[in-house]
Parts: sequence; structure tokens; C-alpha cells
Amino acid sequence: MTPLLLVSQHVLERHGDALNAILRTAPRALEVLPFTLDLQVTAAQVPRIEAAFFSYEIWNGTIKNQPSAQSALFWSIADNAPHLKWLQVFSAGSDQQRYRYSFERGVRVSTSAGTNGAPVAMTAFTGLLAVARGFPQWVAAQRGRQWTPLQGGQMPRDLRGQTAVIVGTGIIGTTIARCLHAVGVKTVGIRRSAAPAEHFDRTLPLTELDSVLPTADWLVLAGPLTSETRGLIDARRLALLPRGAGLVNVSRGEIVDEAAVIHALRSGHLRGAHLDVFTEEPLPADSPFWDLPNTIITPHNAAISAGNFGRGVELFLRNLAAYLAGRPLINEV
Amino acid sequence: MTPLLLVSQHVLERHGDALNAILRTAPRALEVLPFTLDLQVTAAQVPRIEAAFFSYEIWNGTIKNQPSAQSALFWSIADNAPHLKWLQVFSAGSDQQRYRYSFERGVRVSTSAGTNGAPVAMTAFTGLLAVARGFPQWVAAQRGRQWTPLQGGQMPRDLRGQTAVIVGTGIIGTTIARCLHAVGVKTVGIRRSAAPAEHFDRTLPLTELDSVLPTADWLVLAGPLTSETRGLIDARRLALLPRGAGLVNVSRGEIVDEAAVIHALRSGHLRGAHLDVFTEEPLPADSPFWDLPNTIITPHNAAISAGNFGRGVELFLRNLAAYLAGRPLINEV
Repeated sequence: MTPLLLVSQHVLERHGDALNAILRTAPRALEVLPFTLDLQVTAAQVPRIEAAFFSYEIWNGTIKNQPSAQSALFWSIADNAPHLKWLQVFSAGSDQQRYRYSFERGVRVSTSAGTNGAPVAMTAFTGLLAVARGFPQWVAAQRGRQWTPLQGGQMPRDLRGQTAVIVGTGIIGTTIARCLHAVGVKTVGIRRSAAPAEHFDRTLPLTELDSVLPTADWLVLAGPLTSETRGLIDARRLALLPRGAGLVNVSRGEIVDEAAVIHALRSGHLRGAHLDVFTEEPLPADSPFWDLPNTIITPHNAAISAGNFGRGVELFLRNLAAYLAGRPLINEV
Repeated sequence: MTPLLLVSQHVLERHGDALNAILRTAPRALEVLPFTLDLQVTAAQVPRIEAAFFSYEIWNGTIKNQPSAQSALFWSIADNAPHLKWLQVFSAGSDQQRYRYSFERGVRVSTSAGTNGAPVAMTAFTGLLAVARGFPQWVAAQRGRQWTPLQGGQMPRDLRGQTAVIVGTGIIGTTIARCLHAVGVKTVGIRRSAAPAEHFDRTLPLTELDSVLPTADWLVLAGPLTSETRGLIDARRLALLPRGAGLVNVSRGEIVDEAAVIHALRSGHLRGAHLDVFTEEPLPADSPFWDLPNTIITPHNAAISAGNFGRGVELFLRNLAAYLAGRPLINEV
């Protein structure tokens, strides 16, 4: 029996021709099993599933560990397919709970890292600029129909000449650095090694983060959650930042000590923050984060962009051709 | 009697040495009359005033035609000084009501155009990015402690590849264009002539604005208010924009038909706006602008930046040296 490729009807409708062209010319056969919300997989089909594409619109509606209906169905199939060998996922990160079982049982997993990096970076850059220019104060005044120009001590400093320390020098961190350079902000990249990275004035290894925090007007968290970065930004490191520094987090909530961040935002040690990610998502209604006047909250939504879907499918198709030809996969974890 | 230069005590305290150095080496004498809120000018002093610097902190607190206390006092002196010959003003524009009498009676007026262009551009750029990425929706959800990621049709399009039509190719328009280029947005500049301008992919004269509006994802108003631009963006021109375009105005409220803009924002023809300027300022509490969910209002505050004051004084000092030496003034209107 020909092995099966589980891929959504939504993807097939939009990119079916390109997919079929790859399958037609591939060195070996793979048959498409179209995924829909009313798919009923037969007992004979399940063992035949060899590859699966967890595409964006299947995930869509999922909030951290609360799966969308499509997502729940997809994983009930994929996690029960005994001969699943390759899983392509729409997400940039590989730390979703749902992927763990695949790793544990040796399924090859490749991510879509890079396909939504530009929108994430643009959201982080926008959040930084908004905090820098005073938008949280203006928006709060607008809500009260108050015309209250910023004056005196509220006046923001010139952005040009400030310094941003960016943890993570992948596509997201690098794109943020490129944008910050364009508005005259100096960039220091923090990465595993100290090797130079494009658009960074300096790079330092993670072990030297403390030495550079006192120079940071902005601390931008844009790297993956790993055992080294979990809890990285605690009260001690926040205290190393100069008073009035700003924080942007488009990485993972677990990278910061959230209670310490709230304390620093309340005391004014942090002048403001743009936070896209939290330890608990959705952020509980009683979280103190919601009401911090100098903080912009975006609901783990930094990546949102209509172009991501197409970029994700393109990467999947490239990996599909590589997989069938036995070549290395892009972004294999 | 030595003629007098009216300049604030605030400026003297911060830049007195540089000012005195210019006066000491000047080809002719000018004596400083320090301006404070409790200055009482004598009848003998008033006719001696030859030059005056309307610096930022004198203006500060003024809202359109409602002067701050210092501002009211300053103009009661300056407008009654019969031999005032030169007036340096902190503002980039020369259209403030308060300057009119000086123009009418032949006082030379030089502005501070250029000294706050970068912050204005940064605010406009931030406003555009914020509308582009969905920040108005996110901020509204935050207010209600709602975790509501944008999905489906709410999803913003990729910014890269979009087109911004920027009316005004001075320092503000050019800086906005430079920033937009850095994030992959194409720029069309609208100016009096069609001469090329740096950071614009194309430039067109004002008379050809209509031809390019249908291609604009963003319409950015960043030029001066003149007889040619008053009422420029009316219902007809808004209708020429494609549905879903965004608007940014850091110019003057009088450049748009405000009722037509409100209508376009309500109907969704405009996807959103960032507006810093209005025909009536402060914006009245009953203005429909306040509550438009897709609109960010900043209170004619786009220029705010701690660095402007120093840049303005530097320009004043350069013009003071030029004035005393009989050389042309920078930014003479």
C-alpha cells in the first residue's frame, strides 16, 4: 500500500497543483490524505500515514495548551499513526507541548522557522517604538477623551543614540536589529557564541549578558526558550538595567520572572514594556499585567500576517521534495 | 543705547556661555534682556528690543490658540516692541497665529524647521506601524482584559511590498520615507515640483496626487499647510484610495475634511488612522474622533523629544551670529 501524507484540504485547495507536481516527479510514491474537520480515518489508513503537515489554519484558534477543534483532531490522528516518520509544523518554535510525543518516539520534526520572523520582528519593533514615543500614555488619554500632551519629565528622549540589547540573533532578533539601526539605535546581540551577526554592533555570549545590561536603554527578548534562557530575566538582572529602560518580549513568558517584571514596571524602574508572551496563556483576567499603564499587551499574536500561510506552505513543499529525495530537511529540529 | 535681545532665562542658564561668546565677538553690540514669567519691561526698554527668541519652554503649555502664561507675556512684549527686527521661533512651522503680526509689520522671522523633524517622523512611522500591525485592536482588548488574537480577515497583510504616498518631502516626509524603506514599504513623494527626493521611489507634483491615490496602502500627510494643501484630502480623494488604506496626519488638521475622514473610518473604507493634528485643538470632548476603534489620537505631540530644546537653541545661536554679521538666516520665512 502507498504510504499517506496527511495535509489539509485548505492547503490542497490553494497549493494542490504545486503539491501534485512534486509527488508526480518524486523518486517514490506518497498518496495524499486530505485533512478536514470531519475526516474519519479508517483503521487501515492509520498505519499508512508516513508524513503530516500541521499547517497554520489547523492550529488557528489554539491558545497555548488549549487546542482548536481541528488541532485536537489532527493530533488524535498523527499521534496514533505508528509509522509517522516526518512532521512539518507551521510554527517557528519547536517547544509546543503537542510536538513532544513526536520527538519522544523519534519522528523527524521540521519547523517553519523564518517564515513568520519578519512579522514577529515588526510587531516587536512597533511595540518598542510605541513605548519609546509615549503611545501608552496617549492611548490612555484618548480613552478618557483627554487632550494631554506629554511635557517636561514625561518627554521621551531622542531615540537616536540609544542602545538595545537583543537576546537572540536568529531571523527575529536580526530583523529587529536591522530596523533599530534604521532609526539610529545601537544594537548588542546576545547569542550562544560570541560570533558576529549581521546588523549587530556587538555580539556577546549569553554568559556575558550581565556586563551589558547596565548600558541597555532597551532589553528585547527574541530568542528561543531553552534550559539556558528559562528564568533568565529575574529581579537581579532587571536591577542591572538602568532606571527608565524598556522591555520587549516576543520570545516566551518563561524567559522572565513575571512577578519581578510587574514590580519593575510599577516602580518605574522599567519605563514601559511590550509583552506578547506570558507564562500562562490566555493571560488570566485577574493578571496585574492588564492594567499596567506603561505596558502594551499583545495576545501571543506578534507573528500574525496574511503572508505567513503561503510562506509556510512553500517551505513545506520544499521539505516534501527533499524528504522524498532523501535530502536534508530545512529546519529539522 | 545698545539694542536688546529678548531671550529666556531658561536658555541663558543652559547656553549662556555660548550666547555670550557670540555676542562678545560680534561686529556690533546687542545686550541680553532675560525673559522670565515675572519680567517687567520698562517703557525705556521696549523700543530697544531688536531681536527675540521664542523658545520651546516659553511656548510649552500652549494649545493651538490658547497661549501658556509665559507665551502670553512674551507676545505682549514682542508685539509691542516697535523696533523688533528679527524673531527666531522654536517651531518648525510658521503658520501659528501668533506670528502673523510679525509678518504683517515686516519683522524677519526664522523657524526651527529641521530641529524636531526626526521625532515627528518617528511618531508618524510608529503610528503607521501600529495601525498596520493591529495595535488599536490589541489595546482595546487589553482595556477589557480580553485575550483576543487577531484571526482570519482581521489578519494584517505583510507590510513589505505595500506602498505609502507621502505628501511633503521635507525633513519629516523624507525621514518617514527612509524608515518605511527600511521595512520594505515603497514610497511615493508628493511635492510642489516633481524633482526627485532622497528615499522616495517616485516623486510627483501635487497636481498629480489623484493619479497615485488608487495605489496607496498608506496616505501620510507630512507637509506644510498652504493655500494649496488646505482641504486637500476631501471625500473625493479619500474615495480614490483603495478600500482598507490607512491614513497618518502629522501635518495640520486643516489639510483634511475631518467629517469625510470620520465617515471613511466608520465605513471601513479607511482601515485605520493615526492623527496628531485637528482643525480644533484641543480636540473637543464631544468629537467623534475620540471613540473610533481603529484610530490612534496623539495630542499634536508628535514632535515631543527631549533633544529638541538643545537643537533649537543651537540653531538660534547660529542664526544670531549670522544676523549680527549680516549673513543670511537659516530658515528665514
